[in-house]
Amino acid sequence: MAVRHVVMLKLKQDAAEEDKLRMVRELSSLKDVIPEIKSFHCGLDAGLAEGNHDFVLTADFASPEDYKAYATHPAHVAVIQEFIKPIVLSRSAVQFTL
Amino acid sequence: MAVRHVVMLKLKQDAAEEDKLRMVRELSSLKDVIPEIKSFHCGLDAGLAEGNHDFVLTADFASPEDYKAYATHPAHVAVIQEFIKPIVLSRSAVQFTL
Repeated sequence: MAVRHVVMLKLKQDAAEEDKLRMVRELSSLKDVIPEIKSFHCGLDAGLAEGNHDFVLTADFASPEDYKAYATHPAHVAVIQEFIKPIVLSRSAVQFTL
Repeated sequence: MAVRHVVMLKLKQDAAEEDKLRMVRELSSLKDVIPEIKSFHCGLDAGLAEGNHDFVLTADFASPEDYKAYATHPAHVAVIQEFIKPIVLSRSAVQFTL
């Protein structure tokens, strides 16, 4: 049962653009490190609508177990600690079956 | 420039399961009605993690203009009015370039 994991973030108003871009780069690099990731797309909001959040990632896995391996993977945890936590205001997530 | 549109919803605690499933069906049917939709996936949270939101949709478009055609399309607006508004608590969205 394939799963799509989606995380949406609001970032701090004073977060530096470079720090946001670094977060995107570091998260995107996880697909080269965590084999369970089948597909990975993320990005900063493109400004097409009012009142949006600031960032979203969508990642696909072959199973719930593969998603959980990703969620607890040391490389993923390290990116959260080093590149997301310093600039995040709020986080919301959903995983659903594809 | 391809765009992924992501909407995440918290639903009312007392929303009936049938109404949630109907919302998923109605939204999913939009891909047969709105030609600008290139890819469309949505679903209720699978319960794999604590503190998640209740629903998310991801929809891909070939351009920002195609996304805006979808956003304003009568069929999309009707689904929002009839099947989402009655059961939604909060909505957050991001569009990013793929």
